This record gives sequence, C-alpha cells and structure tokens, in this order.
Amino acid sequence: MSGRRSIAVSLKIKHDGISILGPGKIDLLERIDRLGSISAAARDMGMSYRRAWLLVSHLKESFGKPVVETSHGGKSGGGARLTPLGAKILDLYRVMEDKARQATTAEVAELERLLADN
Amino acid sequence: MSGRRSIAVSLKIKHDGISILGPGKIDLLERIDRLGSISAAARDMGMSYRRAWLLVSHLKESFGKPVVETSHGGKSGGGARLTPLGAKILDLYRVMEDKARQATTAEVAELERLLADN
Repeated sequence: MSGRRSIAVSLKIKHDGISILGPGKIDLLERIDRLGSISAAARDMGMSYRRAWLLVSHLKESFGKPVVETSHGGKSGGGARLTPLGAKILDLYRVMEDKARQATTAEVAELERLLADN
Repeated sequence: MSGRRSIAVSLKIKHDGISILGPGKIDLLERIDRLGSISAAARDMGMSYRRAWLLVSHLKESFGKPVVETSHGGKSGGGARLTPLGAKILDLYRVMEDKARQATTAEVAELERLLADN
C-alpha cells in the first residue's frame, strides 16, 4: 500500500529511554524467519554476522527471553528460526506500522506536497 | 499522555529511501523555535554546533527551501527562528506522532506486557 508512495514511515520504539525496536531489527527478524539462518539474513541485509548476532542478542536482553532459536547439525546442517516471542514481536511491530501509516495518510500527502514544491 | 508509559513510539520518515525526518531533527527544530538560536539548541541537546548546522542544512536540501532563518547583529546579537516551512514541518511531524501513538495503544500495551514478563 505504501509502495507507491515516495514517503515511507517507520517506527522507532524505546523502552525506558533505550531503543528496543526499529526497522533494522525488524527487517532482520523477518529475514531470519524467511531464510532460516542468521548468517543468510545478515548477508541479505549487507550486514556482518557479528552485527546481526548482536541485534538478536539485544532483543533477548530487552525481552528477557530468546527471540531466535538455533539448531546445530542434523540433515540441514543447522539453522535458526523465530521463537514464539520473536514471531509475536515481529507481528506486533508490523501491525503497529500498518496502523501508524493508515493514521497519518493526510500528513504524508501534505509532506509529499511540500517536497514536490522544491 | 505517553509520559506515564515506559514505551515511547517515534517516527522515522524516509523520502525515496533517504531519511528526511526523525526525532533528532524534530527535537532540534523544536529547540531552535524555543531558544531562538542554533547554538543554544545544539548545546541543549548535547550536540555540536556543526552537527546541528548539518541537520538544518539537510532539511533545507530535502525540502528545497530553508527551514531556519538567521539574523546577525542588532540589539539581540543575532539569532535563529523557524521559517513558515520549518514550523509547518515541525507541526506536521508532531501531529503524525500523536496520531501514530493513538493508533497503536493496544500494541504498546501488549509490548509492555511482553517486557514485564521478563
């Protein structure tokens, strides 16, 4: 829905003054969910594995429980997937983003006009 | 209204993939408006004058017109104030933030619960 617009609105969420969720962490969770691996998700975002691992680790610290679970060995050679908590966080953020975008369409159109007046 | 919550939602706004507005630039505009000076606003945010000047300059580039006008000399020794465009951008962003926050109260409450389960 926002794909046709040149303006994109995303959310930054702080808890007690500390940034806990934003587009970067959410895009990472979404890719881990889709690609089944932290390293593949990091590669897909042009991010180092270390940075991806740190973001996942920060989420675990913020929410007190893992958002990603990893498995080693087996036929598939190991991988990663979201825990129910990780999936819930991803879903909540996407719902918030949708609602925020729907609530601000008039102002986004006004910003578009201001930017077009260049 | 959001002061009592430990979760704070803010907006990042991109235009054609480039970040044009977020809490940092908006807090700066608000302080320039209140304090009447870019250097006082920068000091109040613990930001260098150069960084504040760069942010104001990026806004001018994005919107094609100045968002701050400065005066030199005179009794007051010069100062800065928002242009009508700068005031409009500040106002639009604050309205968007309010609407986004009002639209996402249920999800924020759910995030609060997830964070409290630690």
